[in-house]
Amino acid sequence: MQISKGVEWAAHAASLMIGLPEGKGLKSEALARYHGVPTAYMAKQMQALSKAGIVQSSRGAHGGYRLARHATDITLWDITAAIEGSGPAFRCTEIRQNGPCGLKRSDCTRPCHIAASFAAAEAAFRDTLEAITLADLGAQVMQDAPPAHLLEIGHWLGEEAVPLGKSSD
Amino acid sequence: MQISKGVEWAAHAASLMIGLPEGKGLKSEALARYHGVPTAYMAKQMQALSKAGIVQSSRGAHGGYRLARHATDITLWDITAAIEGSGPAFRCTEIRQNGPCGLKRSDCTRPCHIAASFAAAEAAFRDTLEAITLADLGAQVMQDAPPAHLLEIGHWLGEEAVPLGKSSD
Repeated sequence: MQISKGVEWAAHAASLMIGLPEGKGLKSEALARYHGVPTAYMAKQMQALSKAGIVQSSRGAHGGYRLARHATDITLWDITAAIEGSGPAFRCTEIRQNGPCGLKRSDCTRPCHIAASFAAAEAAFRDTLEAITLADLGAQVMQDAPPAHLLEIGHWLGEEAVPLGKSSD
Repeated sequence: MQISKGVEWAAHAASLMIGLPEGKGLKSEALARYHGVPTAYMAKQMQALSKAGIVQSSRGAHGGYRLARHATDITLWDITAAIEGSGPAFRCTEIRQNGPCGLKRSDCTRPCHIAASFAAAEAAFRDTLEAITLADLGAQVMQDAPPAHLLEIGHWLGEEAVPLGKSSD
């Protein structure tokens, strides 16, 4: 069971966007450079976040991304689901209906206990991530980071942020 | 994020083994036939369960598998970890140390908040599966299954179970 690197990148990129000046955004290239990762793959994550309504984007020479909702309304589960999909990790193939002692389909009105157990575990995973917002992550960074580091991030955002043009949505 | 089919197969196969007569086991071929899945892939899952100490195996013409511990001492997490590995699903690559505002390694004494959030979610997932034993699953099947179906499973196990020879461990 693995969670793709894209989730890590998207979560960091979205967290950084909390600090953007009003009405401004960051290009995928700048987001990639900030995090020291390849631009093409960062752009792919931003497209996924955009499709999920987590970031808003604008086209053109000044195109960039910024959060589409307040950071208190975006959870780590939203970001994970945008990148990884929200389907179940455990996919029951109903093998209880197979073989010499297979149950009849009509007798399988309730989920298999094994599938139900994994559904409960995945719900616990999801619930944990749903309880953590970007605002929570931002507050933790603000609390932990040395003041000089926050200033440095502020300078960088000030230099790199571009005005958001007409929305592409 | 996906959990491999092998986990489903291994969980069903291990649950079936609860019903084995004392001192007897099932060959991979029989386990595969019972569940209507390919023998080679079922054999691979049994080897993984054996390596993890969940089943015991014996070599030779009468070789087979049975549970190595009591069903109350085997959890769904044990089976998942045996097949999928027990490493973290979210792998932090410390991208907070990258780029123009990257933190110094020496300042990163605590885990990144994003990584810590996923670790908490994965712990919740694991805790749920650790609380469910094979014995629990077996009890649920016994409670739900039509009596005629249990009899049918018993007949099949009686016919297919082979005496366990010398352990291969």
